[in-house]
Amino acid sequence: MNQTGTRPDPDAVKRSLEVLGDRWTFLILREAFFGVRRYGCFQRNLGIGRNVLAARLAALVEHGLLERVRYRTDPDWYEYRLTEAGLDLFPAILTIKAWAERHLLDSKNPRLHIRHSACGAELAPLVVCEHCREPVRASEVEYEATDRVA
Amino acid sequence: MNQTGTRPDPDAVKRSLEVLGDRWTFLILREAFFGVRRYGCFQRNLGIGRNVLAARLAALVEHGLLERVRYRTDPDWYEYRLTEAGLDLFPAILTIKAWAERHLLDSKNPRLHIRHSACGAELAPLVVCEHCREPVRASEVEYEATDRVA
Repeated sequence: MNQTGTRPDPDAVKRSLEVLGDRWTFLILREAFFGVRRYGCFQRNLGIGRNVLAARLAALVEHGLLERVRYRTDPDWYEYRLTEAGLDLFPAILTIKAWAERHLLDSKNPRLHIRHSACGAELAPLVVCEHCREPVRASEVEYEATDRVA
Repeated sequence: MNQTGTRPDPDAVKRSLEVLGDRWTFLILREAFFGVRRYGCFQRNLGIGRNVLAARLAALVEHGLLERVRYRTDPDWYEYRLTEAGLDLFPAILTIKAWAERHLLDSKNPRLHIRHSACGAELAPLVVCEHCREPVRASEVEYEATDRVA
């Protein structure tokens, strides 16, 4: 960490919060990761108002996390599927979940257990540097100036 | 992913959103990762109202992400330092940032570059399974029943 006076502007995280910061949005994505695709199923599982659900689904489609796909005709019925961008959010959500289980929950809170089917172990996520594969720590990074945009 | 009818209740992510979902809270944490510790510095860098800043700092202390430490006496002056729990959030934030850069931003958005001082490379975070060290993918997990709490 440095303490320089330059103030980089990491739009990325701010933008994520705009897209994901809403509680319902996040819960809808969670359902999608559990395999839910249909409007009625989201509605039933979350007990969410129809207007709110419709607005949040539309926003997730607009932001490219879900796609609305017709799965039946006459009448046309649609379902919501995670896009590549939506699926790619999974590791980040998993990392937040693990952090909260370590630091925010106590032993009375139930935990959702996730198994890593690739290896069979209970899944504990670890964030590593793609280059050296060592775990990432806040104390081992340096912030650099942001790109200048013309 | 499965589609079973059981609806596990991952309190962890919901709880994280309660603690972190607020935009200002997140920006304050970001400043803290940049090395900011003092009230006036947070205030200046964020252009945040004093009441809002005081409330958000107090909440972060209450939730255990920051600690309020006296660094000068007569009069007493305090600063806000990231706790172990706060520092441990860094990999998750980094993962969200990288996701947003891949999927939400376009080439016009400036990017904050972070260097991994441990190896010297520009830091690209990768979420792996702690057990097998393979990258985690949404398609390679199974959800299991939550713990039952008496």
